[in-house]
Amino acid sequence: MTAVRIVEVGPRDGLQNEPALVPTDLKLRFIRLLVDAGLTEIEATSFVSPKWVPQLGDAEQLWPRLPGGAKYSALVPNARGLERALACGVRRLAFFTAASEAFNRKNVNMGIAESLAGFEQMMSVLKERGNRSEFWVRGYVSTAFECPYSGRVEPKVVVSVCRRLIEIGVDEVSVGDTIGVAVPREVRDLTRSLFEEIEPGRIAYHFHDTRGTAVANVAEALELGVRCFDSSAGGLGGCPYAPGAGGNLATEDLVYFLDRSGIETGVSLEPLAMASLPIFDLLGRPPQSKAQIAALSLAGPSQAGTE
Amino acid sequence: MTAVRIVEVGPRDGLQNEPALVPTDLKLRFIRLLVDAGLTEIEATSFVSPKWVPQLGDAEQLWPRLPGGAKYSALVPNARGLERALACGVRRLAFFTAASEAFNRKNVNMGIAESLAGFEQMMSVLKERGNRSEFWVRGYVSTAFECPYSGRVEPKVVVSVCRRLIEIGVDEVSVGDTIGVAVPREVRDLTRSLFEEIEPGRIAYHFHDTRGTAVANVAEALELGVRCFDSSAGGLGGCPYAPGAGGNLATEDLVYFLDRSGIETGVSLEPLAMASLPIFDLLGRPPQSKAQIAALSLAGPSQAGTE
Repeated sequence: MTAVRIVEVGPRDGLQNEPALVPTDLKLRFIRLLVDAGLTEIEATSFVSPKWVPQLGDAEQLWPRLPGGAKYSALVPNARGLERALACGVRRLAFFTAASEAFNRKNVNMGIAESLAGFEQMMSVLKERGNRSEFWVRGYVSTAFECPYSGRVEPKVVVSVCRRLIEIGVDEVSVGDTIGVAVPREVRDLTRSLFEEIEPGRIAYHFHDTRGTAVANVAEALELGVRCFDSSAGGLGGCPYAPGAGGNLATEDLVYFLDRSGIETGVSLEPLAMASLPIFDLLGRPPQSKAQIAALSLAGPSQAGTE
Repeated sequence: MTAVRIVEVGPRDGLQNEPALVPTDLKLRFIRLLVDAGLTEIEATSFVSPKWVPQLGDAEQLWPRLPGGAKYSALVPNARGLERALACGVRRLAFFTAASEAFNRKNVNMGIAESLAGFEQMMSVLKERGNRSEFWVRGYVSTAFECPYSGRVEPKVVVSVCRRLIEIGVDEVSVGDTIGVAVPREVRDLTRSLFEEIEPGRIAYHFHDTRGTAVANVAEALELGVRCFDSSAGGLGGCPYAPGAGGNLATEDLVYFLDRSGIETGVSLEPLAMASLPIFDLLGRPPQSKAQIAALSLAGPSQAGTE
């Protein structure tokens, strides 16, 4: 048991937000390298419609070939996705909603209440399957600080959505700064509000580093007692039209920060820094993680990625 | 009076660490844009030998043409540099030493004690000039957390060098994480040690974002009571052989963090984000600051720098 859990979301949330289609074999190589680096919780894919997200259209082909050594989860957007995931034998599932009505409607074309009602039905399906404890379910709550359409989001709204998810039966909520605007002061306010209603052990944060604040936000949440963070190897999932733009917090930046802070993660930075390079080669751009680039530079400029 | 002072070091520390020679006119345009964005303390150049740092070889040409609206300082490495600076009418001066013997020797070819003895002589020159209060002097203490040659640096060593600088008469010490390794826990330890001997108002931090921890370190120092931070527009001064490598904390990342935290800086992010673009055009690479890229992206992808 490590002091802090890292949920690697690069293969799903990262690749979903990159324009290129990554071949299944290359995804498997990437995931193998992540496991070799010590990551033990990996969100591997999404059982979303390939029409919506062609990048993850190979979920059925990928899942049975995932390497041993880690626990894999998959996003299931709806009953159809759940059916597909269960047919593949997926036991760790993630649902997705938002703290902003406007964002949820733009993103999944329904209100938050409707999303939650869908999750309840999906939880019923799991219960019908027999032993509920066979499954682990995570609920994402995106735009937990600000919505790109409706502005600031109040902590009480986020708490209310998280509480509903817990009532429905999810094991963990992952609270997301989807557009990467938050600063530690906001993280403190939200965390304190969440702790009033939800056990710290059931809360994860999913920070984006769009404006360079993600590590500072992790530091604040960690100080307050949060012990699970999502991140994406190489910062995969950035906004590729602007070179250097930050999307997901990079796993390398998270691991460097935790390591140097004396917090056990079980992940080795050097192999981790190499893991996403084949993907960035395919994407035709350099990795986004500063700790990764520093680690690769120390290994010699000739290995510094795709330059 | 703003709540936090920002010392912009892009024109000196940034350009000193870029391979290209930037023409004086372009430097002046850059500085003009920095002033227009609201920066009021700018380290404009160094009176170092042009043989050592050709990038700043135009100090005498630059200084008299600096635009109004800001206080400018210049680095003076030695008595010869001081003489040149005083001949130009420089009134805000910065000295440079390290907390690591090994680094100081590699960097300026003398031990720390010898550096400090040189500063004492330079302070005597200022006193001979008449009114000491006419001058403002800053002392840089680099490698305050770790030295690339000799490893970790103990807080007590840093405190001792800072105390000597204060005794010699500097108005402010700027404590630098030169290789960008520190995490908030280390910043907390060092800050508490510094506060035992030195007034908080005389301490600035100079963080590098080599591994993505600089904003987190600012957040920690700010929480403890430090009120002055150095930064470089666009993160100028990075390591150009590795795309995306971080050097100086980017002023845009600092300003975004402070703004969103409700702390007055007097600086406007949007014009600031534009200020370094002519320099990055010349350098032939995109800016390094995530908050800058985000600000430029919001202004439209076509303005996102040098892509």
